[in-house]
Amino acid sequence: MTKPAASLDEMRALLRDMPGPDLDAGTAATLRQRHLTKPLGALGRLEDLAIWLATWQARHPPELRRPRIAVFAGNHGIAARGVSAYPAAVTAQMVQNFLNGGGAVNQLAQQFDADLRVYELDLDNPTADFTEGPAMSDAGCAHAMAYGMMAVEAGIDVLCLGEMGIGNSTAGAALCAGLFGGPGVDWVGPGTGVDAAGLARKIAAVDAGIAANAARLTDPFEVLRCLGGFELAAITGAILAARRARTPVVLDGYACCAAAAVLFKADPRALDHCVVSHRSAEPGHTRLLDILGQKPLLDFGLRLGEGSGAALALPILQAAAACHNGMATFGDAGVSTATADDTPSIH
Amino acid sequence: MTKPAASLDEMRALLRDMPGPDLDAGTAATLRQRHLTKPLGALGRLEDLAIWLATWQARHPPELRRPRIAVFAGNHGIAARGVSAYPAAVTAQMVQNFLNGGGAVNQLAQQFDADLRVYELDLDNPTADFTEGPAMSDAGCAHAMAYGMMAVEAGIDVLCLGEMGIGNSTAGAALCAGLFGGPGVDWVGPGTGVDAAGLARKIAAVDAGIAANAARLTDPFEVLRCLGGFELAAITGAILAARRARTPVVLDGYACCAAAAVLFKADPRALDHCVVSHRSAEPGHTRLLDILGQKPLLDFGLRLGEGSGAALALPILQAAAACHNGMATFGDAGVSTATADDTPSIH
Repeated sequence: MTKPAASLDEMRALLRDMPGPDLDAGTAATLRQRHLTKPLGALGRLEDLAIWLATWQARHPPELRRPRIAVFAGNHGIAARGVSAYPAAVTAQMVQNFLNGGGAVNQLAQQFDADLRVYELDLDNPTADFTEGPAMSDAGCAHAMAYGMMAVEAGIDVLCLGEMGIGNSTAGAALCAGLFGGPGVDWVGPGTGVDAAGLARKIAAVDAGIAANAARLTDPFEVLRCLGGFELAAITGAILAARRARTPVVLDGYACCAAAAVLFKADPRALDHCVVSHRSAEPGHTRLLDILGQKPLLDFGLRLGEGSGAALALPILQAAAACHNGMATFGDAGVSTATADDTPSIH
Repeated sequence: MTKPAASLDEMRALLRDMPGPDLDAGTAATLRQRHLTKPLGALGRLEDLAIWLATWQARHPPELRRPRIAVFAGNHGIAARGVSAYPAAVTAQMVQNFLNGGGAVNQLAQQFDADLRVYELDLDNPTADFTEGPAMSDAGCAHAMAYGMMAVEAGIDVLCLGEMGIGNSTAGAALCAGLFGGPGVDWVGPGTGVDAAGLARKIAAVDAGIAANAARLTDPFEVLRCLGGFELAAITGAILAARRARTPVVLDGYACCAAAAVLFKADPRALDHCVVSHRSAEPGHTRLLDILGQKPLLDFGLRLGEGSGAALALPILQAAAACHNGMATFGDAGVSTATADDTPSIH
């Protein structure tokens, strides 16, 4: 992979400079909701999502014609410690499966007319084993972030993020422990389906990773560098780039949200342009969502990764935009308004 | 509207004769799930839905190319008692809005490529006020059920059901009270958004309806006749016809599920071919779902009706079928299987 020169200090500077919400677009969406042919609030979260899309696309009406799903794949030194039910070779095999159109995310992208891109991060060169020191160098981590930023191109209406990387539910758990504290047992789960011995190895790996890197975990980007992975850093970068490009983001499951949490820890407003697609079966995800203050759209017990949950949330956003943009107003349709005090008052 | 001759006894006979699950199709779906390129169970509820679709379509692979959304509209004598924030004229106005393409359900049907049909049930002639006696005659209720059955045509892969009828959240609450007991206050909620006085009128109407019809509430179909409405009876009929036609059904919110509950009360297996799309903001819905043993797919605080929640669940089913039918198997894709004991054992 070719990478632009970058350092984590450049990433820290980008985060400090991120744009806020577009309140004009959000207000325009809120006002339009009052006129649509339905009782005020009757579309529940769909109304919130339409307003959120306008706010973070910085335009009204919001549009969802060009969704992109970006799946980042990376390999992990920690995989050698038996933390997954699958061998590390499966990362590259699954990437090939995606390129052949055989993955779950391929079917979802096709069903919902999304542009699916798969980004490999040097699969032949995994991160270092974080139980022995930092997973990545400063430049390596920053380059992975910069690579992730390339997934954000002009004209993309929403970005769904996903990952593939044998061992990355352990790296995600280590990120959470490094960012928010707590022992490994608080953050580790069965991932792809390890048995009790595998679970014990995952917990031990997280605890060893925290111990080996303790002196370095001085800021969220250092936590990402020491305990994360290339595909997770790419996700962190993509979220940051999407904020700057006025592109709302749909996060996937545990590993994806752990990568996002790096930005949240640095600035609690940093994920305001992101929605969490689903609550993963991985128990650490619920703990993490509570910290992030995010309510997932779906709760289907998914634990696949590869952006499958984020892709599955896409039609919900499409529905929100379609209702918001396409419904008639009371005035247009000649429908009587409510007789109670909550009658829309602006005409 | 022209209606075939029918009686509620004919409907009772149809229910006794309903087909069960197709275990061959369900087993074929279960076996295929074991080979797909994902850890077993990693697609969570999507896997269950694919197996459910095959079981109740009685074919493998399941298909979702021809979804239909059927919205039934009816008027209610009870509306004259001030139980809604909107005047009864809004039922017909909203039907016209649907015909013009301006409703929420229109946008959702278009977004998800569904065939939307709107069925009016004699809007100029509302049901009788159920606080003074039965809402419908035996023939009137049976004719409405038979009319609903017409929504189930050959070649429909799934049927999403919805309703429009000012006053029908009160009728739905009365149905639930009649079927499962409890005072009106247990089952009544704000509906389209009534104030405290309106809520009190709704509760009083339900209690009065139960009292006025108490001697007649001898079986679930009598409850439907005395306390329901034409569009609710049509939904009950459509669910019954769909079972016979091997068409899975997606239920909408409170009023729709109350109409479905008539069949459940008569036979607890009668809704096995139905999935509930969402948990409504109406509090009685959660109480009803607990009784039905149904876990809704979405929880977005919707309270619109008109099939909007059922339509919103359609892409979830489409996703389940797409993943099930389109994903590569481990063998096809050359992906290594898990090393743990849960390795798929059938090749």
